[in-house]
Amino acid sequence: MTEPARAAPEQVRTVTCVGAGVIGGGWVAYFLARGYRVVAWDPAKDAETRLRHLVGRAWPALTELGLAEGASTDNLVVERDLATACAGTDFVQESAPEDLVLKRTLLAEIDAVTPEDVVISSSTSGYGMTEMQDKCAHPERTVVGHPFNPPYLIPLVEVVGGTETAPDVVAWTAAFFRHAGKSVIVMDHEVPGFIANRLQEALWREALHMVAAGEATVEQIDLSITDGPGLRWPVHGPMLTFHLAGGQGGMARMLDHFGPSLESPWTRLQAAELTPALRDAVVEGCEREAGDRTIDDLVAERDRGVIAILRALGRA
Amino acid sequence: MTEPARAAPEQVRTVTCVGAGVIGGGWVAYFLARGYRVVAWDPAKDAETRLRHLVGRAWPALTELGLAEGASTDNLVVERDLATACAGTDFVQESAPEDLVLKRTLLAEIDAVTPEDVVISSSTSGYGMTEMQDKCAHPERTVVGHPFNPPYLIPLVEVVGGTETAPDVVAWTAAFFRHAGKSVIVMDHEVPGFIANRLQEALWREALHMVAAGEATVEQIDLSITDGPGLRWPVHGPMLTFHLAGGQGGMARMLDHFGPSLESPWTRLQAAELTPALRDAVVEGCEREAGDRTIDDLVAERDRGVIAILRALGRA
Repeated sequence: MTEPARAAPEQVRTVTCVGAGVIGGGWVAYFLARGYRVVAWDPAKDAETRLRHLVGRAWPALTELGLAEGASTDNLVVERDLATACAGTDFVQESAPEDLVLKRTLLAEIDAVTPEDVVISSSTSGYGMTEMQDKCAHPERTVVGHPFNPPYLIPLVEVVGGTETAPDVVAWTAAFFRHAGKSVIVMDHEVPGFIANRLQEALWREALHMVAAGEATVEQIDLSITDGPGLRWPVHGPMLTFHLAGGQGGMARMLDHFGPSLESPWTRLQAAELTPALRDAVVEGCEREAGDRTIDDLVAERDRGVIAILRALGRA
Repeated sequence: MTEPARAAPEQVRTVTCVGAGVIGGGWVAYFLARGYRVVAWDPAKDAETRLRHLVGRAWPALTELGLAEGASTDNLVVERDLATACAGTDFVQESAPEDLVLKRTLLAEIDAVTPEDVVISSSTSGYGMTEMQDKCAHPERTVVGHPFNPPYLIPLVEVVGGTETAPDVVAWTAAFFRHAGKSVIVMDHEVPGFIANRLQEALWREALHMVAAGEATVEQIDLSITDGPGLRWPVHGPMLTFHLAGGQGGMARMLDHFGPSLESPWTRLQAAELTPALRDAVVEGCEREAGDRTIDDLVAERDRGVIAILRALGRA
């Protein structure tokens, strides 16, 4: 096997972001803050306006965390044409809407116009690269690099290849994200929903069941986490947290003591049916909870909170 | 109905803590720090030694957060006899092991020796008060007051009565915990696992499935939360967090966009079978992750982290 002639992870200078919604725009802001030149493409007519709003909204947080040398929002170029956006790039991050047909087609289009040795990473939050890469002429350089909202503040990126992805592409991508300041989990095989989303999804489904059954309001669910277990999870994660629930006996004692209650009917086990009534109850609950705080207010509040937590834990 | 002649919530001076393990001991530390006189009882021979260790370990964190006037570990009395521990108390918090038969019997014993107008609250993490109170002569003053580990730092207490619990007892208990500085969720009816534990349990089950299936290690699970969604949850909780995943369209757009993926097989839906192999994999994973950090080291680390987060979010 000949080694691809791609740039070393630390030599990447230009990053192309395909898709400029909440996630794509977050990536744009992040890469700009890390000092990269960023070329963005999005088919929406008002894409550039929305993207510059997103980047502008994220910039104070990124400035507070510290910009890389030479970092500037002036390093952003928005192209109208996908081929122009991908020509001469060192790395592509795709963040299109979560639609399998769309992503398969788009990845093949990106693949056709991107220099052959350049890695193409997808922000997909659930699809496996195996099911997305099959229309690509060079599927070996496609890989999942799954971020968390907002990508400019949450460190985690889950990296996993498909059956056609070359192992050295997975390794390169992990090294690139780490060099760019991310916290990377490399998965050795595809799991639907990866890791964090499966955990998050389990919690989310349970929350929907509780709202649907009238057992808890949206506000109670949020308060139960912000003032409860949510305060422990950023410190140690769920497993090590429970390691401390067993006293000096640790996880062993915890499992021996609470293990039997695993069988208790504490969780609703099916996916909740998203009826119009449930949808409305969840939407109205969020709007009630948000009160007169706009989305921008809430984003600013979240960003301040996440930065404060990262700082507080010595991880900023 | 005659109003019980119990002390007003803000007039409570003496709290009895029955059970002095991790949770009971955490309550003892918390109530001492809030300036209460605490009487503790636990049937274990070495209970007092272990309890004083727990309180001593928690005290630096509590001191850093600020002690109430007159707060002192000298205000702790450990009694050998349950009746003596409950005589003359203003409030009882039961934190015995999670065993229904044991709790039913113990609550009846506490009920028999506690002044009739005094509220008896249980730390149970899963049983309903209805199934625990039926041997009590005065079940109307028994109520669930479910804390989170460590009770001396995590603000949340879930308060819910059983079918025999008097509504004014639920109200009194909520008022008492709030006066004592807690964040209280009052549930209007019993739900197995209450609210936060159901959410936490859903995540925990999913984590066990992933370990059992070899899809993620204990360390990956923890990292996926500490560096991922765990950084958002203390700020806004899971619902308002997703309200921000939909861009300016908020939760409505988020549900309309991601709703269909609710049906995706992202979560394992049964309770994981806790086989000896799974138990050992989880225990060994935690020990590997803990490395040379002892339980006491980890507790201190968690306490510093939680305090830092509370401070960072302006909630200390």
